[in-house]
Amino acid sequence: MLASTGYGATSADEPLSKMDFQRRDPKPDDVQIDILYCGVCHSDLHTARNEWGNTVYPVVPGHEIVGRVTAVGNQVSRFKEGDLVGVGCLVDSCQHCSACGEGLEQYCENGFVGTYNGEEMHTGGMTYGGYASNIVVRDKFVLRIPDNLDPAGAAPLLCAGITTYSPLRQWQVGPGQKVGIVGLGGLGHMGIKLAHAMGAHVVLFTTSPGKREDAKRLGADEVVVSKNASEMTAHNNSFDFIVNTVAAPHSLDAFLELLKRDGTMTLVGAPSSPHPSPQVFNLIMKRRRLAGSLIGGIAETQEMLDFCGERGIVSDIEMIRIQDINTAYERMLKSDVKYRFVIDMASLKQEG
Amino acid sequence: MLASTGYGATSADEPLSKMDFQRRDPKPDDVQIDILYCGVCHSDLHTARNEWGNTVYPVVPGHEIVGRVTAVGNQVSRFKEGDLVGVGCLVDSCQHCSACGEGLEQYCENGFVGTYNGEEMHTGGMTYGGYASNIVVRDKFVLRIPDNLDPAGAAPLLCAGITTYSPLRQWQVGPGQKVGIVGLGGLGHMGIKLAHAMGAHVVLFTTSPGKREDAKRLGADEVVVSKNASEMTAHNNSFDFIVNTVAAPHSLDAFLELLKRDGTMTLVGAPSSPHPSPQVFNLIMKRRRLAGSLIGGIAETQEMLDFCGERGIVSDIEMIRIQDINTAYERMLKSDVKYRFVIDMASLKQEG
Repeated sequence: MLASTGYGATSADEPLSKMDFQRRDPKPDDVQIDILYCGVCHSDLHTARNEWGNTVYPVVPGHEIVGRVTAVGNQVSRFKEGDLVGVGCLVDSCQHCSACGEGLEQYCENGFVGTYNGEEMHTGGMTYGGYASNIVVRDKFVLRIPDNLDPAGAAPLLCAGITTYSPLRQWQVGPGQKVGIVGLGGLGHMGIKLAHAMGAHVVLFTTSPGKREDAKRLGADEVVVSKNASEMTAHNNSFDFIVNTVAAPHSLDAFLELLKRDGTMTLVGAPSSPHPSPQVFNLIMKRRRLAGSLIGGIAETQEMLDFCGERGIVSDIEMIRIQDINTAYERMLKSDVKYRFVIDMASLKQEG
Repeated sequence: MLASTGYGATSADEPLSKMDFQRRDPKPDDVQIDILYCGVCHSDLHTARNEWGNTVYPVVPGHEIVGRVTAVGNQVSRFKEGDLVGVGCLVDSCQHCSACGEGLEQYCENGFVGTYNGEEMHTGGMTYGGYASNIVVRDKFVLRIPDNLDPAGAAPLLCAGITTYSPLRQWQVGPGQKVGIVGLGGLGHMGIKLAHAMGAHVVLFTTSPGKREDAKRLGADEVVVSKNASEMTAHNNSFDFIVNTVAAPHSLDAFLELLKRDGTMTLVGAPSSPHPSPQVFNLIMKRRRLAGSLIGGIAETQEMLDFCGERGIVSDIEMIRIQDINTAYERMLKSDVKYRFVIDMASLKQEG
């Protein structure tokens, strides 16, 4: 077994604290990685506090991981010691169902293995995430980070980036299209950057007028304050596609009405209590679609990283020490972050 | 003006009764039709009773019309006296918006003209539907009825047929696919016949175990009683496509869960009060889609009629006299019809 040190939760109502734990012994197809940076995703907080009711304690969160390879198994040819690599939300899947066959491991019919709080396929234990000194991951689930990207800013691409990139690609967003991004948080700010880079006319929807200038700096062509009915109706029947990143319950109709005929709104956030029921009329009268999307497959995640490498796209981050993770969670709950916390894992070696 | 006789409503709480009214004088691009048969659609009842709040009285319902051409304007080349023709839900549209340009007049951006209770483009008055002796319709909105089809059985193709045909085509239903039809009424029974004719494996969902044998006779390969949870879960993650014809509020999740990854459920009925809000999780975890669809365009309606002509497909009907329309409405409310009432318009000339 490989010794690891990290920060995790031992129960739903305790703050995260330092803990030692074991990784599996690297197998022939495994890559061993020293973690440099790990992004802080809202899912980390949900899981640490058992807000989805499925947490197995102790849990070490973190699935926006960037690090350096320190060892590889003898069957691994794609990576070598010293490579800058990433690990996202998935670390394993069955590899033989139709979804895995199509490179859509996130929809694995036998259930993918999450990077943390997932059931390890080999040891029968649980997986531990990236708030830690190191990690051992099957080579097929390791991503290559383009050398020209800031490694800390690249970390959130592994979840926030791919979660918005995948639906934008699936619905073939490109030049000449008008694309909406609902919500300016970790996902939304990546949605703006990526849709802009794909050549679309990007409109950011926010409830906060104060975010207007920042959204434009990130690449939005227009900003609409969604609480302002007249600003909204001016965009009726005009959008090709909308990515809705807001997990808090809200009126989906307000955005469905903005879609053109045959337009689609994809939801990437799941609210803990339901959205108000959308009006069927809004779907029928313009043949609109309401869809969902879950992160992205490994091949598409590499494609997204390469896309970002070619265009120099990274996340806007605020770097923190691991010792400040509990404070960061409280700030994240108030949306007080522009736009993603990333943990500098070197801080693990410092005194708390 | 052209004299017409029909059955209509003068207020929301009066039964339909005989009335005389005027059609517009046929213009150079108009087709004048003596009506032989008219199907009875649930929309007729909604409108007669002002259940959608938009009825202008008097109203003459009926938009599943089959008849014979009695005269054509001098610009009309596609039809001649004696032709067997049909008129569906639309009788006009702007003809210059992008929807009309694509042959999708049902999504006309300037609003299509409904066959009844619509605003006439020429006279400024209202349109009157097919519970009548004759009708005058712009040639572009007149359909050709294949000669081999029973004309009475063909009438419901103009609404119930195209409403289910259009989404089945849009989502490319064909051999090797598993397709669900929710609800066995006027729309559902056409959905079964059409999806079966397209080569799909068809599963009918009904709340009535008593409909099992009849659904199989119509072409369903399997019948699932949707109230039976174990019957439902046996089909989890297995459907390519579902057409949901049920307008009464019900759990959409029960059907969304049955879709494969990337599967779509299209709603063709709008409930008067909302369905329970679907779980976003059901859309995200399998990248599923919830969509809507409204009847079909004129070109696609002709394609559907030709498709039915080649395969001998008509609606299962119960013929009634126009004098029995109010009784038929009451029976329709109890789903006591297999599967569409069609009015024999020759009865108009008889004494009540």
